[in-house]
Amino acid sequence: MNPQTYILTHFGGFWRFVQSVPWLRRKVNRFLINSSIDRTATRPYPFTTLNPYTSWESLTDRTYSNRHLPAVEQPPNLPDTNTLADLFMRRGETILCPKSTVLFAYFAQWFTDGFLRTDGNNPGKNTSNHEIDLTPLYGVNKPVTEIIRAKHGGLLKSQMINGEEYPPQLCENGVVKTEFAGLKQVQFGDRSPEEKNQFFAMAGDRSNVQIGYVMLNVLFLREHNRIAGLLAREYPAWDDERLFQTARNIVIVILMRIVIEEYINHITPLQFPFFLDPGAFPNERWYRQNWMAVEFTLVYRWHMLIPDKLTVAGASVDPWTTMWNTSLITDRGLGALFEEASRQPAGKVGLFNSPRFLREIEVRSIQMGRDLHLASYNDYRATYKMPRVTDFSEISSNPTVQSELKRLYGNVDRIDYYIGLFAEDTVPNSVLSPLIGTLVAIDAFSQALTNPLLNPNIYNERTFSPLGMELIEKTSRLTDVLHRNIPAGSPNFYVSLTREDWKRV
Amino acid sequence: MNPQTYILTHFGGFWRFVQSVPWLRRKVNRFLINSSIDRTATRPYPFTTLNPYTSWESLTDRTYSNRHLPAVEQPPNLPDTNTLADLFMRRGETILCPKSTVLFAYFAQWFTDGFLRTDGNNPGKNTSNHEIDLTPLYGVNKPVTEIIRAKHGGLLKSQMINGEEYPPQLCENGVVKTEFAGLKQVQFGDRSPEEKNQFFAMAGDRSNVQIGYVMLNVLFLREHNRIAGLLAREYPAWDDERLFQTARNIVIVILMRIVIEEYINHITPLQFPFFLDPGAFPNERWYRQNWMAVEFTLVYRWHMLIPDKLTVAGASVDPWTTMWNTSLITDRGLGALFEEASRQPAGKVGLFNSPRFLREIEVRSIQMGRDLHLASYNDYRATYKMPRVTDFSEISSNPTVQSELKRLYGNVDRIDYYIGLFAEDTVPNSVLSPLIGTLVAIDAFSQALTNPLLNPNIYNERTFSPLGMELIEKTSRLTDVLHRNIPAGSPNFYVSLTREDWKRV
Repeated sequence: MNPQTYILTHFGGFWRFVQSVPWLRRKVNRFLINSSIDRTATRPYPFTTLNPYTSWESLTDRTYSNRHLPAVEQPPNLPDTNTLADLFMRRGETILCPKSTVLFAYFAQWFTDGFLRTDGNNPGKNTSNHEIDLTPLYGVNKPVTEIIRAKHGGLLKSQMINGEEYPPQLCENGVVKTEFAGLKQVQFGDRSPEEKNQFFAMAGDRSNVQIGYVMLNVLFLREHNRIAGLLAREYPAWDDERLFQTARNIVIVILMRIVIEEYINHITPLQFPFFLDPGAFPNERWYRQNWMAVEFTLVYRWHMLIPDKLTVAGASVDPWTTMWNTSLITDRGLGALFEEASRQPAGKVGLFNSPRFLREIEVRSIQMGRDLHLASYNDYRATYKMPRVTDFSEISSNPTVQSELKRLYGNVDRIDYYIGLFAEDTVPNSVLSPLIGTLVAIDAFSQALTNPLLNPNIYNERTFSPLGMELIEKTSRLTDVLHRNIPAGSPNFYVSLTREDWKRV
Repeated sequence: MNPQTYILTHFGGFWRFVQSVPWLRRKVNRFLINSSIDRTATRPYPFTTLNPYTSWESLTDRTYSNRHLPAVEQPPNLPDTNTLADLFMRRGETILCPKSTVLFAYFAQWFTDGFLRTDGNNPGKNTSNHEIDLTPLYGVNKPVTEIIRAKHGGLLKSQMINGEEYPPQLCENGVVKTEFAGLKQVQFGDRSPEEKNQFFAMAGDRSNVQIGYVMLNVLFLREHNRIAGLLAREYPAWDDERLFQTARNIVIVILMRIVIEEYINHITPLQFPFFLDPGAFPNERWYRQNWMAVEFTLVYRWHMLIPDKLTVAGASVDPWTTMWNTSLITDRGLGALFEEASRQPAGKVGLFNSPRFLREIEVRSIQMGRDLHLASYNDYRATYKMPRVTDFSEISSNPTVQSELKRLYGNVDRIDYYIGLFAEDTVPNSVLSPLIGTLVAIDAFSQALTNPLLNPNIYNERTFSPLGMELIEKTSRLTDVLHRNIPAGSPNFYVSLTREDWKRV
């Protein structure tokens, strides 16, 4: 551990003092974020997945994905992807993460699904807007957004069930309603009429897949409609369009605060909690147009977070019973589900801990790295200013990981990027390995903080309204959003990405 | 004149010294460019032509145009646009510009046509790529580019006529050839079969309109094919795609050098000539994603540059005889036409000097400012840190301009932006008024220098090849490009944006 990391992860009292001095807190926040991002070259990157060289098309066609490093020839005789997938498979019980809850898993999946959108037909292409724009809630483009808007009061279409607000049903008698014909749902054809009848009409194409998606989409739908209602009362002259657009802007920035202040702070081992400081970065070299990179897409495949059993309605069930099953939420209400997900530990990110039903996806992820000619694990470490590993024992303290990697690769320089990401030990007090953590810091910070809504020209009362600014300023955690969007008189639910019993080591 | 401007426009000896010291030259270049741009807020701007408020759509949908200032209610009883158009009309002889040639007019029109692309159906919308990407030569998108590529050797399709290279004919017997069916040409339906048979198959939708477009497109087509040929010889392993894409990148940067080092330096009154310094601006606050603004579009309507008579083949002719008439160029060759355009003075930018046949376009331009609810001339001056004018005599020294503006507007604060741009006296030794010059500096520099090809990550031999870097480094003027693209043994032609007889005052 280098001295800076040691200081940042210890001396809690000192860091509490730093936080209590506003100018110092801002300076430290800015310094730490800049140093996280500055570990590698900034955008624009010379290469995308289009060509192994730079063309005007590769510099402008964002349906191809960016790449941090150019394509390289793959070393000969790399281990077979099927064999490598075995390294990911859980052997016996789920290895639990000491820090994260299942809610963390749900949030990470839902949130990143909005911008890490690999094209199913071509892993080098994407369908991303390259912005954190709440695509799962609002849809990937305007035609989709139009379908889910109520077109009055700035609202999204919704219905009440058991006194709580939900999106409308997508289908009637197993057939998609005409008004929702434009909403695509993945694997829709494989679902039974009973499952289809439960589905909600939501803009994200994966929104009905698993209960975690549904929970977060329902929560943010309620928050959108709540805010639109408040704006309508405060600004009676505004039409539907202005109410909708302003509520949407406010909701996006509320999500951004949660991402930086709850989600990122959960991930990092640092004693200093980051905060969203919109005016802080106007002159930074990294403040460049967003463009999602293939390396970032592969980083975010945290399949291990899903434990072998999930607790739902007090019962321990197989994870797939939470798929295509929205009645789990309407039966018991949103608050109870958030609490249940917050009281269960997630699996730990790393090898030997992916659920067996995701084996095929691990094979495909390894293959994707090869097909896109990614550089090796060690080359990526060097790119992000991390020392190259020289021995398998520097990657993992787990003897099985060491011996398996040695057996399969022979030499640390041959390890695939995707394998290396997950083979490393997690950082103490973090939930991720050093390489994953570094990439998340670079790309999450540099892509979130360049959101146009956070630009000093735009982050103001003129954009959000005075009421909107107030709403943004008082929200930094999911629990805030949940408790203002459940029926009056509901109990106080426990909503947390971090386990109740987590203790800093 | 403020002291800085005085110093910058005088003391030629001192400025020649500054240029001779490389580090000082770089520092001054950078300082002057930064101060030009820093006269107003930087992108991202909060508003576009979509809505009078900020929405996620307005922040991301670039088919709407950016705006420097938000929409404002227009003052009551503004003068009629038809009456105002009279202020633009030439009264008698063309007022000649003491500095610019007709080649300057041709270049400005052709160059800006690539990125200032107002949508004919909606003046608030555009069809721009928002980049200087040589759209007139390569087309606005990939399907168009594909049509004009030869698909071997990285070349653009071409033919030889009288020993010189030209694009192929678009039509056969007055009908567009099948292979070129995807190439749109404005007002094509109004043309006679004889005119159509002359047309070249070019990617720009206005490329055949006037001889100036044709000249510049032919020149850059030859340059592209010449460079592709050189690359093919130097890098025999490259396929058509790589040759094409690399030649295109090189040609775009060559154009960029001409824009900064010949075109901008022609416009500015400064004694210090700017130069293209790709590495100089990586940390600037203005280094933000491009997005063309309506204000910039209106700035660039320099109709007055076109004199009442053009010299073609030694004869003085009406300008419209140079329209839809590509045989002017094939009959006499490219060099002769460049020289002829370089030996004629352009009209002077300002009121009372637009050709009568463009009257309707002036009416529409004034109306466009009104329809888009642009702020007033004086508000725009203030936005760019120029003092507000308080009297008509501060705008123009021309008594007719003063009295006409007074009669029509009554008050300087009511003057339309579009009128004010052209009512001001031109700056001594420049070819533009102070307000136009300021806007050109802000938007031309800040949009050209953010071109991804100029980014330090990309501006290197890996992108352009060592040969490409050499070609870029030795080109800074149109005359360089012309003389390497005409038949061996041609005379040395005079090619210049600046009149031979121009003297600094």
